[in-house]
Amino acid sequence: MSILVVGSVAFDNIQTPHGKVDNCLGGAATHFSLAASYFTPVRVIAVVGKDFTAEHEAVFTRRNIDIQGIEHANGESFHWTGSYTGNMDEAKTLGTDLNVFETFDPKIPEAYKDAEFLFLANIDPVLQSRVRSQMPKVKMVCGDTMNYWIADHTDNLKKVLRELDVLLINDGEARMLAGERNLVLAAEKVLAMGPRTLVVKHGEYGATAFFSDRSFPGKKIAHPFRAPALPLAEVVDPTGAGDSFAGGFYGYLASQPELTPAVFRTAMFYGGVMGSFAVERFGTERLQNVSRDEIDQRFKLFRDISHLDE
Amino acid sequence: MSILVVGSVAFDNIQTPHGKVDNCLGGAATHFSLAASYFTPVRVIAVVGKDFTAEHEAVFTRRNIDIQGIEHANGESFHWTGSYTGNMDEAKTLGTDLNVFETFDPKIPEAYKDAEFLFLANIDPVLQSRVRSQMPKVKMVCGDTMNYWIADHTDNLKKVLRELDVLLINDGEARMLAGERNLVLAAEKVLAMGPRTLVVKHGEYGATAFFSDRSFPGKKIAHPFRAPALPLAEVVDPTGAGDSFAGGFYGYLASQPELTPAVFRTAMFYGGVMGSFAVERFGTERLQNVSRDEIDQRFKLFRDISHLDE
Repeated sequence: MSILVVGSVAFDNIQTPHGKVDNCLGGAATHFSLAASYFTPVRVIAVVGKDFTAEHEAVFTRRNIDIQGIEHANGESFHWTGSYTGNMDEAKTLGTDLNVFETFDPKIPEAYKDAEFLFLANIDPVLQSRVRSQMPKVKMVCGDTMNYWIADHTDNLKKVLRELDVLLINDGEARMLAGERNLVLAAEKVLAMGPRTLVVKHGEYGATAFFSDRSFPGKKIAHPFRAPALPLAEVVDPTGAGDSFAGGFYGYLASQPELTPAVFRTAMFYGGVMGSFAVERFGTERLQNVSRDEIDQRFKLFRDISHLDE
Repeated sequence: MSILVVGSVAFDNIQTPHGKVDNCLGGAATHFSLAASYFTPVRVIAVVGKDFTAEHEAVFTRRNIDIQGIEHANGESFHWTGSYTGNMDEAKTLGTDLNVFETFDPKIPEAYKDAEFLFLANIDPVLQSRVRSQMPKVKMVCGDTMNYWIADHTDNLKKVLRELDVLLINDGEARMLAGERNLVLAAEKVLAMGPRTLVVKHGEYGATAFFSDRSFPGKKIAHPFRAPALPLAEVVDPTGAGDSFAGGFYGYLASQPELTPAVFRTAMFYGGVMGSFAVERFGTERLQNVSRDEIDQRFKLFRDISHLDE
């Protein structure tokens, strides 16, 4: 079933210990949709400027991603400049030029309205709510956010949280949102804000899903689920790893006929798989060219590194 | 088969957000041997002072731990004072009084010499080497160390590393020992120093085993293994969690007829299980009183939180 994602399409200037790239196609919606495209049809809502050319369009269309919802506005696209040092566990933002993204008002094409899975990537929660309200029949809603919205747009964000089936954030964001250092207690508080399920991403340590009584109607899952990350000898560029995790996770979920605990667990593994590919090259290079066979092999590797049997 | 552990038996003053205890029985050898005692016979070599009474002896003997190797010296036992704040991921040492531990010279009782598994807890690598050399017929040697020895006693430590089957350290120690931020590259460098296998503990994120070609003679394991930690709503006192992990891990290994990859993986899970019990109460309280049934149930929980099938 198809996913509709609303989020940023951007150009990134990235510096890591492995090199430097300029004007590299990026943005949460880009990473997400490429990762998800290996599992299910994806439709994108975003806004770009004059610098987004046919060459960039082709990055999406080659993966059969529907881009009729990418609006072309007058001006430049969103540009982000960041760098990573040391263990590369956190990006240092050196510059953010919102450009056409500053006045982004997501419009949902008629042809998108039958999408059954909605992903609200990290954008202004007011826009997330607006998109959500225009998709009343959607089967599942999954969302992301970041420290900026948690700190300064809390009320708007809390409105979105009430509408979410799954919230996907990282450790620091979960602790900040809950105002609680212990991750289990933080998860309980976040779940009480509305999301049926919370997925907390731990970077190189994997991710943990925390379930509420509403996660699987009729089933009670009394414990969290922890998916591994692949220990990697070389992380070239961590940009978009979290969005790629979300894409693999949600793409797999959307491809399945039913949401069961086992499907959810498998989706968490596919999230890790797509995140592990994303960081192997700068920008979206690896996500554009991974094969289904490589994905399957890496999924098996994730299983092998975490399961007791040989 | 039986384990011989050499390490510290100490008294701890501990402050955490959950309270404060004084003169609480602790030390690496104590946590280790209690955790291991649920799986296999354990013999301890340590030194204590006059403040170590029959009541403290009983903590060991109630778990059938052989303490004839605990030497009673004139003076006070090793005392450690530390505190944990915030997320409690690191202890702040407020005081270390080595006392009788300062001149500790491990002596191996004759009756201990047929022990087949040796655990060198975190002590001066010179002493670790001395004990190792007196146990030439031992089947397996596992060891721990800490930043102090890595930084200031590197050459002595490197001599010990060449003798180890398994080195158990945490992330920071692995990175420091290798002089390398990337964990996979750090693990490769550490394995090149001698240990056949490296287990890196990640605290609340579990642990990863890195294998060399010498880990399992005749078998090549091309990827690491990642064991989860249990997300806990309440960590009362993290002191000794790493030693308890080591005890559960090594105790299980020593209880098995053969070292296979599946046995090693299971041992990693039992390490996490015993670590998760250790932090539920101050000091060794929980490790003294856990039941085999609770251990089995928690092992099943570790499986449930990490495995794809339901």
